[in-house]
Amino acid sequence: MVRPKHGGNLSWAANIAGCPISSVKDFSASINPWGIPKTVLKAIQEQIPRLTAYPNPEYPQLKSALAGHHCLSTDYILPGNGSAELLTWAARELAQQERTYLVTPAFGDYSRGLKAFNAKIVSLKSPLLPFGDLSSLIPGEQLQNSGLLLNNPHNPTGKLWRREEIIPYLESFALVVIDEAFMDFLTLSQQQSLIDLVPNFPNLVILRSLTKFYSLPGLRIGYAIANPDLIQKWQGYRDPWSVNSLAAAAAIAALEDHDFQQHTWDWLVPARSQLMKSLSEISQLHALPSAVNFLLVNTALSVTELQQQLLKKYRILIRDCLSFPELGDNYFRIAIRTPQENKELVEALKQLIVDI
Amino acid sequence: MVRPKHGGNLSWAANIAGCPISSVKDFSASINPWGIPKTVLKAIQEQIPRLTAYPNPEYPQLKSALAGHHCLSTDYILPGNGSAELLTWAARELAQQERTYLVTPAFGDYSRGLKAFNAKIVSLKSPLLPFGDLSSLIPGEQLQNSGLLLNNPHNPTGKLWRREEIIPYLESFALVVIDEAFMDFLTLSQQQSLIDLVPNFPNLVILRSLTKFYSLPGLRIGYAIANPDLIQKWQGYRDPWSVNSLAAAAAIAALEDHDFQQHTWDWLVPARSQLMKSLSEISQLHALPSAVNFLLVNTALSVTELQQQLLKKYRILIRDCLSFPELGDNYFRIAIRTPQENKELVEALKQLIVDI
Repeated sequence: MVRPKHGGNLSWAANIAGCPISSVKDFSASINPWGIPKTVLKAIQEQIPRLTAYPNPEYPQLKSALAGHHCLSTDYILPGNGSAELLTWAARELAQQERTYLVTPAFGDYSRGLKAFNAKIVSLKSPLLPFGDLSSLIPGEQLQNSGLLLNNPHNPTGKLWRREEIIPYLESFALVVIDEAFMDFLTLSQQQSLIDLVPNFPNLVILRSLTKFYSLPGLRIGYAIANPDLIQKWQGYRDPWSVNSLAAAAAIAALEDHDFQQHTWDWLVPARSQLMKSLSEISQLHALPSAVNFLLVNTALSVTELQQQLLKKYRILIRDCLSFPELGDNYFRIAIRTPQENKELVEALKQLIVDI
Repeated sequence: MVRPKHGGNLSWAANIAGCPISSVKDFSASINPWGIPKTVLKAIQEQIPRLTAYPNPEYPQLKSALAGHHCLSTDYILPGNGSAELLTWAARELAQQERTYLVTPAFGDYSRGLKAFNAKIVSLKSPLLPFGDLSSLIPGEQLQNSGLLLNNPHNPTGKLWRREEIIPYLESFALVVIDEAFMDFLTLSQQQSLIDLVPNFPNLVILRSLTKFYSLPGLRIGYAIANPDLIQKWQGYRDPWSVNSLAAAAAIAALEDHDFQQHTWDWLVPARSQLMKSLSEISQLHALPSAVNFLLVNTALSVTELQQQLLKKYRILIRDCLSFPELGDNYFRIAIRTPQENKELVEALKQLIVDI
């Protein structure tokens, strides 16, 4: 089997581990380990008999729920078949600019989308990780007629940029697309979302995912927030029934599940600190500081070798970074999972690294 | 509420009927009344716990099942988020031709897709319905550097063109896209699919839906069959996880359910004949001959008026044809449903038309 370009490809991993897919301990996909919320499962079950009807192309209940969640009017909202679908249309929009600046390493699908519409990509690379301020990455000129595609918090590093750092660029760039796919893992007071600024900046697009926080990557649900003209234009780019009815029902239930949200926030900060601390005790590994539910780890060891051993001996899958040309074989990414699972990962890493 | 552009918008209808959505008898969406198959429901249920994992972007099991079903290799198959998603990419491909010929009236989303990529559309209109041969519609010149988008069987008329009529155009057009969304309602011996010719014609694309025959429009699942280069190109146009995991599992189970297929074929032919016969007894209505699971009906009466009355008095929703500029207020489309439901529709029409 060919090495997968994205995390979470469990058939590939199960094949190496020599076990069923369900036995693979997946640290490669950055998914909340506490989901699917029971309330969401209930909403999915209730919707199944209604699959015989087309979704309403206006998605009125879903748009209302999302709009209410962000205190915006529904005109600003476009639900999508995962935020990945909306990235395609954001990329088409960015491709109309003379160039698009992209902070790299970046989620691989950004360049897929940009290339699909022949966008000119300008990579903004940091000589060293972790990233510093945005101003250390973005050049001081050639920003007019240009787009910026920024992932905040950033995947795969876990870096969070502050609102104040980003806001000045809304004046200088023609179009700013911010992928906030992991923003909901931060508590409301810690979030650095720019969603509230969309009504003031017609050149600002925010992409959001609901599949990571609510553990629904198989169901596909995300949304874009942008000025109503752009939303209408994108709606004409794609077919009217892009979001399946189960995803729409799941999203509405998810947004209402405040207990699940609180439980996730209560888990993440101590679990991340504990995992960082445990990893720091392994001298060959250096985890970057992270604001979210995954850690990027730097090592002098060969990650492909480590990945194979973890699979074969412990059925544990970590995300190699071979698909990020800037990172290569000396970085891996791990999702933060339950305390018990994190402990198993650390133990496995410790034993393996002693053996190597 | 705004009048919907497509069939199956049940919130709009329920609002007029003054009843819950579940009480509307929907003849507007051309969906098999016998689904969802039990085998498919089971497959969906079994897949729900696995929604916490990303779909495998290669969709190996789904591609295998579809390829096996059509005796092709998997390279020719691209599953999509409904055939509507794939229509978008077909439209992008057609837009690269100097012009695209489109038989009209046509499914409204064709022009949406073509306009999204600035295609030049040339309408092929029949002065009278039902349509005659293809050669009476397609001009004899200016076919090079041109695309043809053909719906076979045709929605909303129910016309089926024979393979032999279409095949010569594979030589004359640069690109031929055939939307066979309703072809599976015909028995294997009656089908006029060109799928088997795809390996011989790199300029031939077939679009197929699984949501109409298996009553899954809410779940979204369709596929394209085309030459492997085109499939790979389209795969780069869109994100890697376009088909949700429940739809993938449902499709595999659906293709295996030969009992359900046979039951549907056994129902359709007599149900359609009976409905045609009953309608022919209402002198103000003239139903066009149809090869599939819906009928287009011509009438001198105002269809918007008839539609309102059917909703208010009988909670029955028929599909008006206002969104087809060639048809306007003197045509409506009805799905063929169970014998009992069809009888209710005919009774309601008879009573209403006497009253008008």
